[in-house]
Amino acid sequence: MDEPLLVERRPLPIDGRLGQQLAFLIEVDRLKTVLRASTLAAVDRRENDAEHSWHLALMVPVLAEYADEPIDVGHTIRLVVVHDLVEIYAGDTPIYDDKLRTDQAERELAAADKLFGLLPADQAREFRALWDEFEERRTPEARFAKAIDRLEPNLLNWMAGGGTWLTPGVTADVVRSRTEHIGQASSALGEAMRALITGAERNGWVAAGQQGDPGPA
Amino acid sequence: MDEPLLVERRPLPIDGRLGQQLAFLIEVDRLKTVLRASTLAAVDRRENDAEHSWHLALMVPVLAEYADEPIDVGHTIRLVVVHDLVEIYAGDTPIYDDKLRTDQAERELAAADKLFGLLPADQAREFRALWDEFEERRTPEARFAKAIDRLEPNLLNWMAGGGTWLTPGVTADVVRSRTEHIGQASSALGEAMRALITGAERNGWVAAGQQGDPGPA
Ligand SMILES: [Ca+2]
Repeated sequence: MDEPLLVERRPLPIDGRLGQQLAFLIEVDRLKTVLRASTLAAVDRRENDAEHSWHLALMVPVLAEYADEPIDVGHTIRLVVVHDLVEIYAGDTPIYDDKLRTDQAERELAAADKLFGLLPADQAREFRALWDEFEERRTPEARFAKAIDRLEPNLLNWMAGGGTWLTPGVTADVVRSRTEHIGQASSALGEAMRALITGAERNGWVAAGQQGDPGPA
Repeated sequence: MDEPLLVERRPLPIDGRLGQQLAFLIEVDRLKTVLRASTLAAVDRRENDAEHSWHLALMVPVLAEYADEPIDVGHTIRLVVVHDLVEIYAGDTPIYDDKLRTDQAERELAAADKLFGLLPADQAREFRALWDEFEERRTPEARFAKAIDRLEPNLLNWMAGGGTWLTPGVTADVVRSRTEHIGQASSALGEAMRALITGAERNGWVAAGQQGDPGPA
């Protein structure tokens, strides 16, 4: 987090407001190096946050019809494009890693201050507000964005025949609990998620039943 | 292009319209495996199309204020999220590879038929129309999206100290010609692009002057 900015390696011959914006846009290239716990469906390697964010940005318009409350699709796409940026400095926090989850909020707040602070002040406020909106889940768009964020790695787990569902200590009921957000934003997608878990349980891709503590959703 | 769909490896326990949409959303995971000619700024490896598409989806709202014509930012983001999908089957065509460029249009049209045809008919039309709009560049949004698509790899070339600018046969004037789209959509970004080329020429990151044939823009 105290590393110099990428742009300092090759200062741009452009200054002022545009130079500041381009420096931010170069710095965010780091999101392509933040690895997630999920593996891709297409090849056997881990997904990174930039790939994941792009995938969500396409899932949102394809699945928007299933939102239980009306949503502004364009705004929801912006939320998912921005939602993981803080992980550039805070790192990814896997959903089944309860240890990392304890100080996640603190790490991400410090990262947001640093990253969005690279932008001109008006845009720093604008992009920070998008990230806050996603995190707080108080708007229909933020709730749907979060549902899609939860659904995507579960599709990858299905395609992997287990993936992070096979994390030690995780059972079908833990997965049910951690994916409840989906049904809160979309009853149809919530139902699809439950069908995936039931199928995975039947196929042995997740430990059955109620062993372990479902923990916080 | 005749390979089975990814979803056929692990059929989903979800059918009907939603099953069809999820099959499409799993198939597009392949975009994460389509490598581009550019290398990342953050680490020394090649960029893939999903990462590139995400980067554009963030560049659009940050740089939208520089569009010479008014644009709908949300719509422009959708264009960039979708613009490279056909490369899942058609592959990436590097901008300085004139041989691959000869049958690019034909390969991409066949890919578009196959890929968008996976969606329910109404959405197949909707997403195909976004791709057509991007390609035809007849709207202000499509022209701005194309400008950002051209700008991003040049920022990566700057950070690489050359990158694809060092392709044999490419000179500063070839780069000027191939990036003219930028200035057509945004005079400010066009000027920034010219500053990058002049700086690169001075630093020896691109062959100077007018050697070689600038070719089609
Ligand atoms: Ca995340």
